[in-house]
Amino acid sequence: MRQTPFLAGIRLPDATLSVYDNHIVRTLSSMREQYQDRRACDALLRDNDPVLYQVYELRRPELPGEMYFGLSVVHPGKVGDEYYMTKGHFHTVRDTAEVYHCLQGEGVMVMETSEGEWAVEELRPGRVLYVPPLWAHRSVNTSAVEDLVTLFIYPANAGHDYGTIERQGMRKLVVERQAKPVIIDNPRWHLEKVD
Amino acid sequence: MRQTPFLAGIRLPDATLSVYDNHIVRTLSSMREQYQDRRACDALLRDNDPVLYQVYELRRPELPGEMYFGLSVVHPGKVGDEYYMTKGHFHTVRDTAEVYHCLQGEGVMVMETSEGEWAVEELRPGRVLYVPPLWAHRSVNTSAVEDLVTLFIYPANAGHDYGTIERQGMRKLVVERQAKPVIIDNPRWHLEKVD
Repeated sequence: MRQTPFLAGIRLPDATLSVYDNHIVRTLSSMREQYQDRRACDALLRDNDPVLYQVYELRRPELPGEMYFGLSVVHPGKVGDEYYMTKGHFHTVRDTAEVYHCLQGEGVMVMETSEGEWAVEELRPGRVLYVPPLWAHRSVNTSAVEDLVTLFIYPANAGHDYGTIERQGMRKLVVERQAKPVIIDNPRWHLEKVD
Repeated sequence: MRQTPFLAGIRLPDATLSVYDNHIVRTLSSMREQYQDRRACDALLRDNDPVLYQVYELRRPELPGEMYFGLSVVHPGKVGDEYYMTKGHFHTVRDTAEVYHCLQGEGVMVMETSEGEWAVEELRPGRVLYVPPLWAHRSVNTSAVEDLVTLFIYPANAGHDYGTIERQGMRKLVVERQAKPVIIDNPRWHLEKVD
C-alpha cells in the first residue's frame, strides 16, 4: 500500500489500468434476481453468462480520511427491455457520500433512500454527480453501443451493502420503450421491514 | 444545502459553473511571500494585481462522510522564473486525502510531509492523482498559454491549513530554465519548530 502520492490513468483501454489492484467483473448470473424479465434472463444464461459491468478500484486503508477511487464500466446491453446496470448499493456506513464523474457514454444514476425517496439523474461526459449520504445508487447504461464509464470517489471507510437492494429491489426501473429509456415503477419493490 | 442528489458540470467556460456556490479568486498580492523573486513580484504588483488561480467549490456540511468537490483553475504565467501556482496547503485534519483529476493543461503537483519527504507528479489530462493523508500539496501551471484545470475531491471535514506552508515555504520550487520546467530546492524552506 503506497503511502506516497501516486498517479492513475482513466483513459480506456489503457496500460495504466494495471495500477488498479481490485478488478471486479459482474456477470448476469450474479444479478438474475434483479431483473424483471426472468424468462429473458434465463434465455441469455442458457447461451453464456454475459459480463454486465466491471469495476477497477484502488485499495486503500479503510479509514474515513482515505478515499477509494476507480473506474466503473457498464457495458451496453439489455435483459428483456431492462438495460445493463450495476447491482446498486447503500454504503455500509450509511452517512457517506459518493462522487461520480461521467467520462464516457450515456446513462442514468437511479437513487433512493431507505425512506422511499427516489431520484434519477442523467449521466453524460463532463457531468459530476453528487450522491449525498444515505442514498443508495445504481448506474444504468442506456446506450445501445457504448460503454458507460464513470470515475467514482468515496470515503474509504464507507463499505458496500448490496444485500438491502438485492432483497428490496430499487423503487424505479429503467427500461427501453420505442428505442428510448423510460423510468417506471418497480412492481416488486418493497421497503424491508426493520426489526 | 441540497440533501438530494445533484449534478454539476466541469466544462469551462460553462453556465453550469453557477452551481458552484464558493468562488475563490487568488491574486498575486495574497501570495507575495511565496515567490522567490521579490523584485519581479513587486514589479508585477506595480502595474496590477494579476489573478493567479480560481477555485469553484460546492459547499457541503463539514462532516467526514460528505465530500467537497470543485474545479481549480491555475492561469498561465510566471513571477520571475517561477510559475503561477496555488497557495499550497495541508488539511487541518491532517489524516485526510485528496483526489485530483486533471482535465486540461500541463502542470505538476508539488507535495511534502511535515517530516520533510517530498514528491512531484506531472498533471496531464486523463490522469488522476492520489494525495494521501499527511501530504501538503500545491499545483503549478507549467504551460505558457493554457489554464491548468483539475477536478478535486476531498473529505468535507478536512479543512485547509495554509499558514504552515506560508511560514515554511515548500521544499521544492518549480521554475523555468531554457523554456522547460525544472524542480529546484527552495533556499528559504525550513521545517517549522513545533513546541
